[in-house]
Amino acid sequence: MSSLGDVQSQSMHFAAPLPLASGATLADYTLAYETYGTLNAARSNAVLVCHALNASHHVAGTYAGQDKSEGWWDNLVGPGKPLDTSRFFVIGVNNPGSCFGSTGPTSPNPAAPGRSYGSDFPVVTVEDWVDAQARLVEALGIAKLAAVLGGSLGGMQALDWSLRYPERLRQCVAVATAPNLSAQNIAFNEVARRAIVTDPEFHGGHYAEHGVIPRRGLRVARMIGHITYLSDDAMEAKFGRDLQKAAFGYSTQEIEFQIEAYLRHQGDKFSEYFDANTYLLITRALDYFDPARAYGGSLTATFARARCRFELVSFTTDWRFAPARSREIVKALVDNKLDVSYAEINAPHGHDAFLLDDPRYHGVLRACFDRLASETRASASHDAHPHPAPLPQGSGLQSEV
Amino acid sequence: MSSLGDVQSQSMHFAAPLPLASGATLADYTLAYETYGTLNAARSNAVLVCHALNASHHVAGTYAGQDKSEGWWDNLVGPGKPLDTSRFFVIGVNNPGSCFGSTGPTSPNPAAPGRSYGSDFPVVTVEDWVDAQARLVEALGIAKLAAVLGGSLGGMQALDWSLRYPERLRQCVAVATAPNLSAQNIAFNEVARRAIVTDPEFHGGHYAEHGVIPRRGLRVARMIGHITYLSDDAMEAKFGRDLQKAAFGYSTQEIEFQIEAYLRHQGDKFSEYFDANTYLLITRALDYFDPARAYGGSLTATFARARCRFELVSFTTDWRFAPARSREIVKALVDNKLDVSYAEINAPHGHDAFLLDDPRYHGVLRACFDRLASETRASASHDAHPHPAPLPQGSGLQSEV
Repeated sequence: MSSLGDVQSQSMHFAAPLPLASGATLADYTLAYETYGTLNAARSNAVLVCHALNASHHVAGTYAGQDKSEGWWDNLVGPGKPLDTSRFFVIGVNNPGSCFGSTGPTSPNPAAPGRSYGSDFPVVTVEDWVDAQARLVEALGIAKLAAVLGGSLGGMQALDWSLRYPERLRQCVAVATAPNLSAQNIAFNEVARRAIVTDPEFHGGHYAEHGVIPRRGLRVARMIGHITYLSDDAMEAKFGRDLQKAAFGYSTQEIEFQIEAYLRHQGDKFSEYFDANTYLLITRALDYFDPARAYGGSLTATFARARCRFELVSFTTDWRFAPARSREIVKALVDNKLDVSYAEINAPHGHDAFLLDDPRYHGVLRACFDRLASETRASASHDAHPHPAPLPQGSGLQSEV
Repeated sequence: MSSLGDVQSQSMHFAAPLPLASGATLADYTLAYETYGTLNAARSNAVLVCHALNASHHVAGTYAGQDKSEGWWDNLVGPGKPLDTSRFFVIGVNNPGSCFGSTGPTSPNPAAPGRSYGSDFPVVTVEDWVDAQARLVEALGIAKLAAVLGGSLGGMQALDWSLRYPERLRQCVAVATAPNLSAQNIAFNEVARRAIVTDPEFHGGHYAEHGVIPRRGLRVARMIGHITYLSDDAMEAKFGRDLQKAAFGYSTQEIEFQIEAYLRHQGDKFSEYFDANTYLLITRALDYFDPARAYGGSLTATFARARCRFELVSFTTDWRFAPARSREIVKALVDNKLDVSYAEINAPHGHDAFLLDDPRYHGVLRACFDRLASETRASASHDAHPHPAPLPQGSGLQSEV
């Protein structure tokens, strides 16, 4: 049960096209978002939470009448939680290209009346998402965020905020992330994508028009992903070689080991709710992210324009985005004499640890946000605009809480 | 170019059914095999080489007129090589269930005239393979092997020889192997199998009758496997984030990174020559292998019946069968006061290292076989049967070399 209680999904429409890194533009679009807590008068206590591959703007709380609809980071965000909604105004946003309310491949394609975008949805990047988020934040009347927070792909967005809008955030909190994908990371993404696009029911990405879903591909994609989210040790501890039945059935297709049942279940579940084109777009955004590319590969040169404070966290058993990848970022920040704190948490759960409530991990984030809260209060008195601009209508600044 | 020169594939038919671990039996069957070098008069210099997932009995040498048909372990086996065919009589054998000449899913099903086995081929285990190999070795007139050698799944067979036929080998050489699969290992196998069996062209394993091949599934399966064969570092060194073209094309389906092109190529190649049912069977044999299961999980109790000498080799960057897995075996052997030598090679190539010619690795195997050669010569004088039994016809004991 969420301590935050019931929340509501909101949405905001943007009429101005969004220019994308690819050179294409996204015509008018809608962003789904949620907010928790109350924006203070100085508008200085807003924290933006960026989502990773398969999550959404529903970061915390539950939807009315749906007890089990807790947000994906509910253990971190809420009253009295490390990111305390009694002190911060928290914004969750769904990125364009996703399938949870913001404009994406399942939305109507304005260029093809009566059809959804499908695979004609433009390729989006982390930079594009950050631009879209910045517009939302601006529309909410917030000139400078107290923090941008994200884990994994969400952490990449938080890092990119520090580069793209260096003056518009006080703190970047990037958990279990990397400055770019390794060859092995890309390889796993590519296999997952091949499983999807070679599913005969993919139909070049226009499966909606055929009334089908490339479920087989989605299942395999999710199973692959899931293996990389867990540590070898965690999988061994949870499943080991435990059998599904009392003895071997000697079959190549029936389930023999519990790990098989678990993975199939994960794949089945995922294929029921996730859009295949979105999966392709989001894994590609991961592949493309590489802010140092424009700086000859130098992260130090890349972060020269950053201005905010940084909190980085990694987990010892995360082999998807290993601690060494976070340390690369830390080094670049230190090279630039930026204010950075880094915690390497000795946790057994692999990449998934960033979603769990390990007390050491949550303690680090709590300390980070506590400090930010006291600064925000202190600065509120002199930062506060004497006559704040009127808030946009329906912007949801009256939180449900 | 192979120093061994041209070799010939041979085959032997076995009329007696093979009882299998599953309780089923394999009706009369054929094993494809090759031999290199000359069996000495004492029949004491024979070395059996067991293959891993996608290899065959074609261990070394080339086929006449096919310069590029080198055997999969040609760098190790040949005149003057670490496993020296001028001193040893080397036997390569293709396991039942495979698709390279021995009876397998693509062979005619005696129970269904006019049809191939397809997915009706019985499930086979490492133990079944070792039994089949033992019959071949016996038919070749060899009462005791100088050594059984294998890497990865082949190493499991070598280990199993020491348990199943402890008096019939002098030396077990097990490279880059494990006493069983971890949950993560099984997980990767399971995803690969799901990719194959959910390919609409799999047709429940009877694709041959439909005149199709589940290529999509095979491609994905191979791509997954390939990621696990290489170390993260080796992949990074070889491909990194290098692009296929000068700049991003911004596409979810086109190739952007060289690692993608490489993986797709590996998948395409594999799907041209490998049988899908064989892939299922062999990955299942890997899953099932667990000789300690019958001993309450105690490897020490398991190896109490072993009698031969052991040489184990692992590679530091092998994350599929990490050195720790080899050390589990070494510990069990030491517990039993068996004669064991163990080398952990600091090699960058991951699991694939067992197929490469790292000089330290090959040096270890050379020393092992040199010692064995001198012992074999020494023992030949008193071990030699005064009147060796006549050799079976067409058994290929006259090597092509």
